[in-house]
Amino acid sequence: MRVSEVGEFGLIELLAAELGVTYPPAPDAPPREGLLVDLGDDALVSERQDAPLIWTTDTLVAGVHFLPDRTAWADTGWKALAVNLSDIAAMGGRPHLALVTLALPEDFEVEDAAALYLGLREAAEAYGALLGGGDIVRSPVFSVTVALSGLAPLASDGRPLLMTRSAARPGDLVAVTGCLGDSAAGLRLLVDGDSFTSAAAQRLREAHERPKPRLDVAPLAVAAGVRCAIDVSDGLVQDLGHIARASGVRIRLEAGRVPVSQELKETFPERALAFALGGGEDYELVLVAAPAVIESLVQGGAGVTAIGEVVAGEPGVSVVDQDGAEVRPDRAGWDHFARP
Amino acid sequence: MRVSEVGEFGLIELLAAELGVTYPPAPDAPPREGLLVDLGDDALVSERQDAPLIWTTDTLVAGVHFLPDRTAWADTGWKALAVNLSDIAAMGGRPHLALVTLALPEDFEVEDAAALYLGLREAAEAYGALLGGGDIVRSPVFSVTVALSGLAPLASDGRPLLMTRSAARPGDLVAVTGCLGDSAAGLRLLVDGDSFTSAAAQRLREAHERPKPRLDVAPLAVAAGVRCAIDVSDGLVQDLGHIARASGVRIRLEAGRVPVSQELKETFPERALAFALGGGEDYELVLVAAPAVIESLVQGGAGVTAIGEVVAGEPGVSVVDQDGAEVRPDRAGWDHFARP
Repeated sequence: MRVSEVGEFGLIELLAAELGVTYPPAPDAPPREGLLVDLGDDALVSERQDAPLIWTTDTLVAGVHFLPDRTAWADTGWKALAVNLSDIAAMGGRPHLALVTLALPEDFEVEDAAALYLGLREAAEAYGALLGGGDIVRSPVFSVTVALSGLAPLASDGRPLLMTRSAARPGDLVAVTGCLGDSAAGLRLLVDGDSFTSAAAQRLREAHERPKPRLDVAPLAVAAGVRCAIDVSDGLVQDLGHIARASGVRIRLEAGRVPVSQELKETFPERALAFALGGGEDYELVLVAAPAVIESLVQGGAGVTAIGEVVAGEPGVSVVDQDGAEVRPDRAGWDHFARP
Repeated sequence: MRVSEVGEFGLIELLAAELGVTYPPAPDAPPREGLLVDLGDDALVSERQDAPLIWTTDTLVAGVHFLPDRTAWADTGWKALAVNLSDIAAMGGRPHLALVTLALPEDFEVEDAAALYLGLREAAEAYGALLGGGDIVRSPVFSVTVALSGLAPLASDGRPLLMTRSAARPGDLVAVTGCLGDSAAGLRLLVDGDSFTSAAAQRLREAHERPKPRLDVAPLAVAAGVRCAIDVSDGLVQDLGHIARASGVRIRLEAGRVPVSQELKETFPERALAFALGGGEDYELVLVAAPAVIESLVQGGAGVTAIGEVVAGEPGVSVVDQDGAEVRPDRAGWDHFARP
């Protein structure tokens, strides 16, 4: 059935049900936990929070940010929230409340909207975010916008302990969580119309379609003393460049130390490093801190790998091989899918 | 110049300048007042707030919610924030922080994006909201999404004093701020290609393009004891229906008491009441409270008019004339532009 057939009201009712909420609410219906006023009023109201708030928003447009004929709607729902959760992780926070705006063509299938909300709910439940609902508008092109708030981590004296892009200092080490490049490789397979018969290809696709924000590692990093981080969304070298410019430092990245998965090496033996350095949409975290802090995390079993160091010098990124020779001088213009 | 010519980074720089922020920020640049982390990081961080938060989001899509060839971009920017501010007013709160998402076609003019941001900034400054920035995405169709948070009003003991749709009780009076119908009449003139030579027509257009959220009256209403409100966005009768259903009551609306502007009567003498009852997008407030509370507001000089009462009975709205006769039984199916 198409959304034009059920109408806006019918669609809201159906999507609210995906959130476990009866819409419109009965006059005496209690709000969900954490809310003072739930869906069905002019706005939601959440309980008072005892921390500074973190704010981020990201949009996925059909045909621009994902391929609606190749990616399941539940995966797009998951990703729409996950990319925002990743920004909260990169600040060191924990998720609070999400608002969702769906822009839907009139012939959009109601079942697809429900699947999208299922994916949103799965991500919200996996990472402890409250899905507040939001707005539904008619539009010639599908898009989903998530606005997400988070709560800043606090020291025992109530001081916020945020991780920002501007806190890198010469002498710090640079580390990264997980493996890089899988997502970009998965996108390449999707664009190329791969049939995903190999387990490795399937794993790369999943890295692209169901990224896992590192809300597991972020609090460990904050507790260990990390105060500088970014999530890898544009691509490792570009994102290191954001830290370098925001902090006024130079970052020396040892290309050979960048962690690359077995699946990526197996599927793209010659392009694995290019995907890892420039691919983007990994949603892993870059963590920058004093050597003792990074070493404690590397040895802590959370899958953190040291990949470089912060030095004084002109703000920017140098990518070097194991002999210290710069491997690619053009650091600004990474082509995400350049064939080496 | 088109946005594809300046690129995403150039556009962010330009729009940040509209907010008075240098982008990217210098490593030691202080954040704006009220923020701990400003534009240029993974997310914004705002100072801790000592009140429950109110959450709302609304989107304007070109060609669906406004006519881009007739309405100035600064007006669209104003309205994108104003419609959200109106939801905060309807809960009794005050604005806190807004995130803005622009979906822009590649050939969108940079000057138009700057004008849009100017209008957003004007509304933010007029009503005390912090414009946090947000996301810019490429899309075949222009849209602007604002996610806005507000702060709940508090009693002296810290208890939140919200106005909800579900707090109407039999015996209450129903009142409305300002005049209704101007916005719908202004839209009708825009759609009909009016040349806006009369001052009255110009005033109706302004009511549609630059609505004024009633953040002035909302705190007076809360202080007077109003605990039930809605903003008039769908049209008076529909919005009264939302209160009726949420509260489980019947609302008796006296059509002849609905305030209509001189400009509306002058421009549409025969359709003024239809616009006022069903037009929508007025962004005035319906206030529902005990008679003494409503009477204090009516006499308080804030331009509040009593228009009906809450009675027991099947949830819904009865529209009656001065003799108490129901004037239009079909309360659900108001045609916004029905010619009487």
